[in-house]
Amino acid sequence: KRFVKRDREVPITELTDNIGKGSRLHLAKGITLLESTTRTDKLAGQQLLLNLLPKTGDSIRLGITGVQGAGKSKFIEEFGLMLCWAGHKVAVLAIDPSSSITGGSILGDKTRMEELAKHPNAFIRPSPTAGTLGGVHKKTRETMLLCEAAGYDIILIETVGVGQSETLVRGMVDFFMLLVLTGAGDELQGMKKGIMELADTIVVHKADGDNLRLAKKTVREYRQLLHFLQPASPGWMSTALPVSSIMRTGLEDVWKTVLSFKETMESSNHWETRRKSQTRDWFRSMINDRLIDTFFNEDGKKEQVSFLEKELLSGNLTVTTAVDRLFGE
Amino acid sequence: KRFVKRDREVPITELTDNIGKGSRLHLAKGITLLESTTRTDKLAGQQLLLNLLPKTGDSIRLGITGVQGAGKSKFIEEFGLMLCWAGHKVAVLAIDPSSSITGGSILGDKTRMEELAKHPNAFIRPSPTAGTLGGVHKKTRETMLLCEAAGYDIILIETVGVGQSETLVRGMVDFFMLLVLTGAGDELQGMKKGIMELADTIVVHKADGDNLRLAKKTVREYRQLLHFLQPASPGWMSTALPVSSIMRTGLEDVWKTVLSFKETMESSNHWETRRKSQTRDWFRSMINDRLIDTFFNEDGKKEQVSFLEKELLSGNLTVTTAVDRLFGE
Repeated sequence: KRFVKRDREVPITELTDNIGKGSRLHLAKGITLLESTTRTDKLAGQQLLLNLLPKTGDSIRLGITGVQGAGKSKFIEEFGLMLCWAGHKVAVLAIDPSSSITGGSILGDKTRMEELAKHPNAFIRPSPTAGTLGGVHKKTRETMLLCEAAGYDIILIETVGVGQSETLVRGMVDFFMLLVLTGAGDELQGMKKGIMELADTIVVHKADGDNLRLAKKTVREYRQLLHFLQPASPGWMSTALPVSSIMRTGLEDVWKTVLSFKETMESSNHWETRRKSQTRDWFRSMINDRLIDTFFNEDGKKEQVSFLEKELLSGNLTVTTAVDRLFGE
Repeated sequence: KRFVKRDREVPITELTDNIGKGSRLHLAKGITLLESTTRTDKLAGQQLLLNLLPKTGDSIRLGITGVQGAGKSKFIEEFGLMLCWAGHKVAVLAIDPSSSITGGSILGDKTRMEELAKHPNAFIRPSPTAGTLGGVHKKTRETMLLCEAAGYDIILIETVGVGQSETLVRGMVDFFMLLVLTGAGDELQGMKKGIMELADTIVVHKADGDNLRLAKKTVREYRQLLHFLQPASPGWMSTALPVSSIMRTGLEDVWKTVLSFKETMESSNHWETRRKSQTRDWFRSMINDRLIDTFFNEDGKKEQVSFLEKELLSGNLTVTTAVDRLFGE
């Protein structure tokens, strides 16, 4: 038993050093530690993260979401390859709220991003498949930091357009983009409300062949729309760009836009300000989650809440009284 | 001392009866009870509300927000008067997050809505001026229920476009409208992101005189925009309407739109479904608020949180570790 325990023990200093040197193998091990649910692993994971904190923060953090069928994987593959070829180190992570329900993952499919996955400058990590959205979110954030410590200077965080996941991703990246198809707006039905006002750039994808003309029209329509909406980032006018991943056109424009965004935000000091407020918000939301989790995990609490809820909806109780009862007053 | 206590005691059965009969005097007393912070009053207020619950729910609940200078008060006055003249009983309430800071209130100014205030069918209640936004929110909800019990069949809830107040109002009304001026979109800068996707109708106000032509153009622009956005209510296509309160034009169209909305929502059963989920959400958010309040009011907790926050932002601590420490782990 002792032997097994020793064997499983993680040599944190070794992990720290090797991740710092960019070892993908050790990075993967470190992430597994962060995702573990055992107490020992968790503590070790946090120690590892703490050791590496001074090496974090030097990347550009990009969030990507898109409508069904927009071709997110293909875009990430081609965009990522372009960046890798230019010497960047690119990490691709995902937040997929559906994975915690189905056990599947948007990045679980091995056939996705095959070429990018093979490139030595790329690191692809599927979405953690266990836990609540808040938990998945926490793990993705910590994974992002570890990737930065391993020298990845571009982090791409992919999410499907479901529930709160876009808001969570928006809350952990510098630049957020939305992939759409032709037919401005119509196809956004079903996406999160206000999604356009989260995006620093809207990519009109599959702008090629017979679709090119319509895609360009859609770009114009989106630009007009964006003019009427609130900017996602202070001092930055969100824009729309046509991109074809199969033709590899427009990808460079996206990258130039990201760089121009960074320059704008840095010169107004919003780059750093936003990151700090993201960390603060993360802390606050974790406190919040912990309070709620603790409360609802008390014996019989869930049952009590749903009983009170039924009473409320039947008009036998006021909301204030229901809350007072729940807190034993 | 005893005498004073007896004198202050609220005869709940009397209040219940008289509010049920539509007495404005008793309604005002009942609301004061709900807003009180003493334990005895609070219990009495909840008992009163419980007594009257069977009489609630029969109104149309309308939320109104607007950009600075859009003329919300004037609109509410003329819209309210039109409804009063048609025999409706109209209650006007407000959620004003700034009032909890400044002690003022958007409805505090006595000169506002003078004519409406004089009408026997109208009841105007200024925003509660004490407490957090969540508290103001709770009081407005409970006031709304009391007004319904007193026979008010139209409730207008006004809010200024600040912070989370629109989301809160959207969460307690059936129909939500946004008042704007000419120049679609540009003026929405500074309003909550995604505000257009909360609105069932956008009223382009001050559509009169020299402004009429431009207002009509703005209406067309908003209709086009709305086509690209997510509908605020399932199965309802949000629209834009020109209104002049000083000329009293377009007010009837707004009312017809509200009625048509109600019909649409009732036939799809969304009217009742939304109300139930609003009550559920209210309950959940009050539980949440209570947990956070209790936690942060513990001795030294605020100081501990801000100390940990500083450590986080200096990179001396991971977020997970900070949360663990806060919860003594």
